[in-house]
Amino acid sequence: MGEMTTTRKAVVLLSGGLDSATCLAWARAQGFTCHTLAVDYGQRHRIELDAARRVSAELGAADHRVVTVDLRAIGGSALTAAIAVPKDRSETEIGQGIPVTYVPARNTVFLALALGYAETLASADLVAGMNALDYSGYPDCRPEFVRAFESLARVGTRAGVGGAEYRLHTPLMTLDKAGVIRLGVSLGVDYRLTHSCYDPAPDGAACGGCDACQLRRRGFLAAGLPDPTRYALPARSAR
Amino acid sequence: MGEMTTTRKAVVLLSGGLDSATCLAWARAQGFTCHTLAVDYGQRHRIELDAARRVSAELGAADHRVVTVDLRAIGGSALTAAIAVPKDRSETEIGQGIPVTYVPARNTVFLALALGYAETLASADLVAGMNALDYSGYPDCRPEFVRAFESLARVGTRAGVGGAEYRLHTPLMTLDKAGVIRLGVSLGVDYRLTHSCYDPAPDGAACGGCDACQLRRRGFLAAGLPDPTRYALPARSAR
Repeated sequence: MGEMTTTRKAVVLLSGGLDSATCLAWARAQGFTCHTLAVDYGQRHRIELDAARRVSAELGAADHRVVTVDLRAIGGSALTAAIAVPKDRSETEIGQGIPVTYVPARNTVFLALALGYAETLASADLVAGMNALDYSGYPDCRPEFVRAFESLARVGTRAGVGGAEYRLHTPLMTLDKAGVIRLGVSLGVDYRLTHSCYDPAPDGAACGGCDACQLRRRGFLAAGLPDPTRYALPARSAR
Repeated sequence: MGEMTTTRKAVVLLSGGLDSATCLAWARAQGFTCHTLAVDYGQRHRIELDAARRVSAELGAADHRVVTVDLRAIGGSALTAAIAVPKDRSETEIGQGIPVTYVPARNTVFLALALGYAETLASADLVAGMNALDYSGYPDCRPEFVRAFESLARVGTRAGVGGAEYRLHTPLMTLDKAGVIRLGVSLGVDYRLTHSCYDPAPDGAACGGCDACQLRRRGFLAAGLPDPTRYALPARSAR
């Protein structure tokens, strides 16, 4: 990624998935010294946390932290509780409404943790992979939410009260999945390191049918780039 | 507390301290069905969590949850890390600046968790004990912060997007400590159940000298009410 020309620090939220890995590569390319933060929130698949650690190391972050928060104690989602993950939904179905995989206030919780970490680092820059176009309708992935969080950070922190201009950078906000993949590939991201699937096989292979797998598959296809992911099932269109 | 005349649910953040116990009594008196939430954030003193559980049960909450978040992973405060708790500071010293006991973004994290829990309960009412006058300068205890959090909740949740008007109730915001104590006593709060001290003795007695103990002592004194707290040391003025 070349020489660092600044000592500005950024806290980058890493999920282990494709989007946040792209964000980290973007933040490095902007010259930030990156402190990555993964959240262990009781997700059913530990594979994600392993992927986040790998991505952080491979993409040159200065430091990686994992903060544990047991979101199962407040219930409510297929990603943490025993609700079936929907499979083989059409693009139209995926685009409609808010999916059952929604974790209540997840981004609010994760960003609050990133904000606390940024305060201890004297950083006012947060980076997260929210995406308004391609994120299956999560309300906390929209630009209005980003602006509201920046406002909260400015009034709710020592540094903000002292005049620091908190920025929540969301470099993927207006990109479709193909655009994210093109950006990442141009920045040298090896997407084999990342994990997207909501329902992986015991050996770690992606299921190929959940919303996340379908979005990922279509993204590589639309970008005209080879998909390095190992899927347990072929794409529905190929069956 | 009499018959419930509404089924409106509220999520009440409970710390085990005097302020949040008063909030719970207030919310019950408003007719809310109260779901209390305590946060196990790696605080040095488990006494606080025990106190929260007792307060929840004694003041008639419908349910009590404890959510664990390891804020030690992101560092930065005397309440979670090995920084000395200041003792016997004067009222002027306590009022100046932001104390070392500040936990970065603590209220933001706690409120984000409360918001997630409220979503799973289909509640749009949160109750928390923030206080602008008497809270030793935490930036996330001010009315600006409360309004910013409400805005965030409205844009960042399913219900908010659907039109729910989230309210973060802070019934103590403009009260001094004596006012809080008078309110709580008028609502039947037994303050022996609560714990405020930042540095309790091994047997659970309050130290009597930390900022929290001093504010509590002065509050009972100013309210003209007997202080039921067991202190390890007499008040500085009495030594």
